[in-house]
Amino acid sequence: MTLGPSNHSSTSIAAAALSALCERLGDDLVLHGPEVERYCRDWHGDITSGAIAVIRPRSTKDVSEAVKAVRDLGLSIVPQGGNTGLVLGATPDEPERQVVISLERMSAIRRIDADDFSAVVEAGAILAEFKDKVEQAGLYFPLSLGAQGSCRIGGNVSTNAGGINVLRYGMTRELVLGLEVVLPDGSVFDGLSTLRKDNRGIDLKQLFIGAEGTLGIVTAVAVKLMPPAEQVATALLGLPALEDAIRLYRRARRDCCDLMSAFEFMPPVAFTLAREAIPDLPMPISGDYEAYVLMEISGSGLVDVDDLMNRFLEGVMVDGLVLDGVVAGSKAQARNLWLFREGMNEGQAKRGAHLRTDVSVPLSKLPAFVSEAEAAVYEACPDCLCVSYGHVGDGNVHLNVLPPSGLSKEEIAQRIYTSKVVINDVLYRFGGSISAEHGIGRLKKPEFAARLPDVQHRLLKTVKQAIDPDLIMNPGCQLNFTPDS
Amino acid sequence: MTLGPSNHSSTSIAAAALSALCERLGDDLVLHGPEVERYCRDWHGDITSGAIAVIRPRSTKDVSEAVKAVRDLGLSIVPQGGNTGLVLGATPDEPERQVVISLERMSAIRRIDADDFSAVVEAGAILAEFKDKVEQAGLYFPLSLGAQGSCRIGGNVSTNAGGINVLRYGMTRELVLGLEVVLPDGSVFDGLSTLRKDNRGIDLKQLFIGAEGTLGIVTAVAVKLMPPAEQVATALLGLPALEDAIRLYRRARRDCCDLMSAFEFMPPVAFTLAREAIPDLPMPISGDYEAYVLMEISGSGLVDVDDLMNRFLEGVMVDGLVLDGVVAGSKAQARNLWLFREGMNEGQAKRGAHLRTDVSVPLSKLPAFVSEAEAAVYEACPDCLCVSYGHVGDGNVHLNVLPPSGLSKEEIAQRIYTSKVVINDVLYRFGGSISAEHGIGRLKKPEFAARLPDVQHRLLKTVKQAIDPDLIMNPGCQLNFTPDS
Repeated sequence: MTLGPSNHSSTSIAAAALSALCERLGDDLVLHGPEVERYCRDWHGDITSGAIAVIRPRSTKDVSEAVKAVRDLGLSIVPQGGNTGLVLGATPDEPERQVVISLERMSAIRRIDADDFSAVVEAGAILAEFKDKVEQAGLYFPLSLGAQGSCRIGGNVSTNAGGINVLRYGMTRELVLGLEVVLPDGSVFDGLSTLRKDNRGIDLKQLFIGAEGTLGIVTAVAVKLMPPAEQVATALLGLPALEDAIRLYRRARRDCCDLMSAFEFMPPVAFTLAREAIPDLPMPISGDYEAYVLMEISGSGLVDVDDLMNRFLEGVMVDGLVLDGVVAGSKAQARNLWLFREGMNEGQAKRGAHLRTDVSVPLSKLPAFVSEAEAAVYEACPDCLCVSYGHVGDGNVHLNVLPPSGLSKEEIAQRIYTSKVVINDVLYRFGGSISAEHGIGRLKKPEFAARLPDVQHRLLKTVKQAIDPDLIMNPGCQLNFTPDS
Repeated sequence: MTLGPSNHSSTSIAAAALSALCERLGDDLVLHGPEVERYCRDWHGDITSGAIAVIRPRSTKDVSEAVKAVRDLGLSIVPQGGNTGLVLGATPDEPERQVVISLERMSAIRRIDADDFSAVVEAGAILAEFKDKVEQAGLYFPLSLGAQGSCRIGGNVSTNAGGINVLRYGMTRELVLGLEVVLPDGSVFDGLSTLRKDNRGIDLKQLFIGAEGTLGIVTAVAVKLMPPAEQVATALLGLPALEDAIRLYRRARRDCCDLMSAFEFMPPVAFTLAREAIPDLPMPISGDYEAYVLMEISGSGLVDVDDLMNRFLEGVMVDGLVLDGVVAGSKAQARNLWLFREGMNEGQAKRGAHLRTDVSVPLSKLPAFVSEAEAAVYEACPDCLCVSYGHVGDGNVHLNVLPPSGLSKEEIAQRIYTSKVVINDVLYRFGGSISAEHGIGRLKKPEFAARLPDVQHRLLKTVKQAIDPDLIMNPGCQLNFTPDS
């Protein structure tokens, strides 16, 4: 699929813009021709667009000069990190008017200060590489994502990335101490402080976290670091019902002193799906239960987390909250328990195209939401299979809908569309969010705009137009703005 | 001291405005006459001003109507919670043009949801009363301040309050899940969600946290709740030097799994000062040390925090990080250890007028900052006594300067002024903040404006003018704006 109109006159305008960019910024910074394509294709490879050029700055000053040049030429900017986003937030959609600014060459770790439990890192640093360097300094940066081998810190900030450690350490916002941002006029907002407490008025950096590059380009980030989680205890538990997962979660937070690092729920069909992907996966737990919880406690130093997990499970099994459970006795066994979670994902993929959601609800409402939303899907699409799982402590559910085999492409698309509509209807009744983690980008913009309250819409527009009056920063992402709309 | 000009013509304009307000909003909502004064005097009682009236809404709708009325009359608004702020952020300074809107009548707890670990509470709820209600529901709201018997949640949000539990639970910002805010045009921003994960674009609520009422009036707040901290272990430790406090802190975070709820440092003079306030206070620790640390670990459920504290101290004493220490064996003993910390404050007050600061530096730089700043004060004011103490984990230092006895009022004021100037000079070299917790208000505005970088200044002005174009929300607080400045 190719996005965006193209005709001869706009092509010649684009060519003139390209040569002006090269002249002003130098050939070293400006990439054009066929190499541009890989920056214009989304992570799934479903959508390919184009751009006038890709600018690849080496410094904050380069970014500032690039923004000024693009602005002077009347073009607009799509900032890009590792291009691993799932909502088309970092790929262009107006090839003749947009320039991608890729931060990939700005990957320096400016500072790791172990006594300050902080680091300052450039936006283009790859998350996994940064985490390794932090580990070598005896500390831990807790942000952990599937894409961490490719995603870059600036993108994590711009999408307020979540990942598997949110329960213990929070979203990216809670890990950010300071930001350096190039604003739409090319000026540099230098907020790279590592202060823990700083109440000097309005905290401007918060605006850029989760803004998906619509207000400026994050060029460097100051983050909190943690002591390493040296010990991890992992358990898979069988529960009487999904409702019990909420009661178990509440008990676990108290009993385990908020040292939980994961608390995932899975449906009975998880095992079937995991076995379809990994046929020789050993069954870790005997018996069939209505709901499963994969739970992890982690810690460092003097707290014995294995002992803590065992005593916790003794108590909740006596009280009937958990019917059966298995605790990993080694790292390999823990890995096997997680393989069920991952195998379940692979198993769904093997069944072909299906609806994947990334929604959140208040966590006390999670069982009721799953029950009502699944019922609504089964009423609208009785031949589909619902697979609901996710992070109990974050209220984050992946309610996926798998069409049966043997349908045509059009029938599958219809099932996906219909089930999304009915899930969103239930979701809004529960005060939920259509995007718990992934952002809005260009993909979820219609859904987002459709239910955005007027006051929020007006306020977003006011802030956007104040900071980016010429609307040059990632136009088309999150919301459509026009100067006089 | 009385602020603000007064003359007959402005007084008659004020009288006309008052009667227009009463007519539009009704007498029940509008307080005037002598009762207004207590809303116009700051917490310390040092500054008394006046206002046209105090509006005391009972509902969000009332607040909205009040904002529209004030706006239509060309007046401006000073929002007020418990009026316990320390920087003149909630008291008026233009008596003939300003109306105080007090949230004291909006104190309902709209909802406590134990399974969701959340609550929704109106801005005027008193912090201690809210904490009590949460405790009755079996949970814990960790924000804890000296003023908690009087301060109100809306003020805590508007100042991003800190307090004694920041190390474990973060500032108010990290406890806020959602906000309801009346904007300067009277419209209501309804962001009262309790979702843990919600990445639907720019997070607008962040703008109002710490804004001290300059962008809108917070009317209700959704907050995170925690499991109660049922167990607390408290210890007072003698260290070879202040530098060792940083090494001890690093070790403590690792060994104690981030379960620390306090890590305060105190100078040797703490005991002298505490004894001046509480003469019969028992000395908890024998021997004289260069630095003292008051440390607390807290937890719930199955972790034995007393055992954890004892094993931690064994290790650090063997390694020479701690020379001597005493662990409280009862709640009464723990109370006595904290009495030193509190007695030290009272002792300083007994010595008369002195400089109190609320500064922060990167935590690894804390010992060097204290050493350099104290040296600079002793060079400029050799007859003064420096008393530095604070929260190591937050990098938050109270570097207070006590003039000697027997000076005139003018001499004392000169010592206070001079030492503040030299401390701020050192502070800025260390990348520190003049306001770790208290905010800017009207009191710290000159210091704040003097060192505010141009880009930040411009961005603050842009955001302020976009959201509050008529500059009616708390004018004079944080920064001076004029429509065409």
